[in-house]
Amino acid sequence: MTTTVSDSVGSVGSVGIVSPQTARFEEPLTLACGRELAPYELVYETYGELNAARSNAVLICHALSGHHHAAGYHSDQDRKPGWWDEYIGPGKPIDTARFFVVSLNNLGGCHGSTGPTSINPGTGKPWGPDFPPLRARDWVHSQARLADRLGIDAWAAVIGGSLGGMQAMRWALEYPERVKHCVVIASAMKLSAQNIAFNEIARHAIQSDPDFAGGRYLEHNSLPAQGLGLARMVGHITYLSDDAMAAKFGRDLRSGTLERGGEDDVEFQVQSYLRYQGSQFSGSFDANTYILMTRALDYFDLAREYGDDPVAAFRHAQCRFLVISFSTDWRFSPVRSREIVDALIAAGRPVTYAEIEANEGHDAFLMPIPRYRDLFAAYMQRVGSD
Amino acid sequence: MTTTVSDSVGSVGSVGIVSPQTARFEEPLTLACGRELAPYELVYETYGELNAARSNAVLICHALSGHHHAAGYHSDQDRKPGWWDEYIGPGKPIDTARFFVVSLNNLGGCHGSTGPTSINPGTGKPWGPDFPPLRARDWVHSQARLADRLGIDAWAAVIGGSLGGMQAMRWALEYPERVKHCVVIASAMKLSAQNIAFNEIARHAIQSDPDFAGGRYLEHNSLPAQGLGLARMVGHITYLSDDAMAAKFGRDLRSGTLERGGEDDVEFQVQSYLRYQGSQFSGSFDANTYILMTRALDYFDLAREYGDDPVAAFRHAQCRFLVISFSTDWRFSPVRSREIVDALIAAGRPVTYAEIEANEGHDAFLMPIPRYRDLFAAYMQRVGSD
Repeated sequence: MTTTVSDSVGSVGSVGIVSPQTARFEEPLTLACGRELAPYELVYETYGELNAARSNAVLICHALSGHHHAAGYHSDQDRKPGWWDEYIGPGKPIDTARFFVVSLNNLGGCHGSTGPTSINPGTGKPWGPDFPPLRARDWVHSQARLADRLGIDAWAAVIGGSLGGMQAMRWALEYPERVKHCVVIASAMKLSAQNIAFNEIARHAIQSDPDFAGGRYLEHNSLPAQGLGLARMVGHITYLSDDAMAAKFGRDLRSGTLERGGEDDVEFQVQSYLRYQGSQFSGSFDANTYILMTRALDYFDLAREYGDDPVAAFRHAQCRFLVISFSTDWRFSPVRSREIVDALIAAGRPVTYAEIEANEGHDAFLMPIPRYRDLFAAYMQRVGSD
Repeated sequence: MTTTVSDSVGSVGSVGIVSPQTARFEEPLTLACGRELAPYELVYETYGELNAARSNAVLICHALSGHHHAAGYHSDQDRKPGWWDEYIGPGKPIDTARFFVVSLNNLGGCHGSTGPTSINPGTGKPWGPDFPPLRARDWVHSQARLADRLGIDAWAAVIGGSLGGMQAMRWALEYPERVKHCVVIASAMKLSAQNIAFNEIARHAIQSDPDFAGGRYLEHNSLPAQGLGLARMVGHITYLSDDAMAAKFGRDLRSGTLERGGEDDVEFQVQSYLRYQGSQFSGSFDANTYILMTRALDYFDLAREYGDDPVAAFRHAQCRFLVISFSTDWRFSPVRSREIVDALIAAGRPVTYAEIEANEGHDAFLMPIPRYRDLFAAYMQRVGSD
């Protein structure tokens, strides 16, 4: 009798069913803004086993709208795996047969870690807009405490894409002795004015939605669904390349004819897709978290406290680096990655750089792209062997 | 006694004080959507004098948010001249000492021509969202009637940038015998999916503003100022290059420090600038017109009724072409202009093409850029001499 291995829950390459855990911290965390946060909770998942030497731990840092659920399924009924399941699992680039993978929801998030939707112990109401502003370094410090809790002195690798890549770089500077490898994918040392402008539009869309109620929508039993949906639509366009959108939608109409226009106000396929994406997102993500996360992105500036000199900044790092960019990513373009690489080389840090030809724009970092996957896997083979 | 020539109203190079005129048309115009419009009015300005042979008339077609006031001043108190004053006037590329320049507000506009803010004779209320949808060809047909009214059998040149360039190309196909030269600046034969997506976000922002009231805001004495402001902010980013934004704003803060964040919710200079642009625009432009104009952009497809073959389309043209693009224009990139040029060459039409190095993105077509101005002027010298 043979068993069919299906490509679903528990199949080859999947970490299978996973359960989130929660770590509670009573000791106050002093934030970059000067305020203290206590107590707070971090929700996280782990995949694979920590070895006896505690030397095989890998930290995944998530991007703007990410969370702790990076791989596997939460139940048999789950239709979709975690957001980076293409890259985390047995035999995958972040091989759970070799690594103990830790993936958490960042502080300020809306998927279980303490954030704007949590109760402010000072008022008994949701934090909402009063949640303290966060910087990438705050996440790094809170992640270090989680590492302490898990008995991890040093990460074999800290890995992140986009905003996650910024955290990975910050790790290498804040805790040089605790990071062996730093993997920075589709990221930048700081945002461009254009990037900030797109984030500003997203925030403005949310804040000008009357249902935002100055950020106190939970107290008013409302949700700024239109504003958050719009914010997501703006983000979504900028994560895709023009070519990828052309390939996906072209100029296809949903209904009607090009001569006369559609029957209703949604005419092109791309419009219908964007509205769907926007409305899905606004039902599953917190608006104050979105504002907080985009502000952390805008304010991130790797070299600021190093005299605005990235070379001086990276001289503090002790790890090896893998930097990856994607040819059609115009939100975090290859130019930004090359700036990182140039600074690392000038600082004498070992760095591997790959610019991957990919049609998918910024979203490529989540996609199954053979050359990217092979290169990522080959690099990760080295991690833990050196 | 000497007189100082000031660089203001009436100075060298300016057409001086101009007054808009209105042409009223009683005969119904059959639109691409199948509906008829009657009566309707077009507001326009003219600069320079029509010669005896009536052979020196030039038509200016405006872009998304443009209007008839392209050059000169409406009064001594005017602080700003018309939108294309850099290029229209005595001694300028569109030299009013040689040409009779006609510039109108398109049908469906909100600056005096019949549009959504006009009274619908069938109801006695503003047209609002019931104004018929328009295509570029409708504008061309209405412009042809204005030409008839002014006694212009053929234009020495039809000139436009962006959406205006689309009208100029449509002129060359709809009325081949009435166009001698066609000048197409920073335009395209059709929008990409990404362009349509940005327009969709703009429309969605307007339509989801509660003050939009289904488009009947004038009847409700409201204005969808937030939505229209957001729409403009999105547009504005896409008209500027990343480099231009970096040069203009960098990552400069308006107040506060990068460590701690701003005092209020407007932190970076670019945010403050975008909000100002958005709020200025929403006080001076009609939301239904914006929706109507962006739809005309989205639906424009030069070659659709020519079997989707631009070469077949351009075989109908009889004029000479000047096509100009700008290196950092990512909304209407040089690639789109080269597609026009390739089709024109394949169709055997005479074409001059220039790709101008300019840092200003799509907005470059409005800017005083020496190489662009010189080239444009040199081409216009030929117009009327052949």
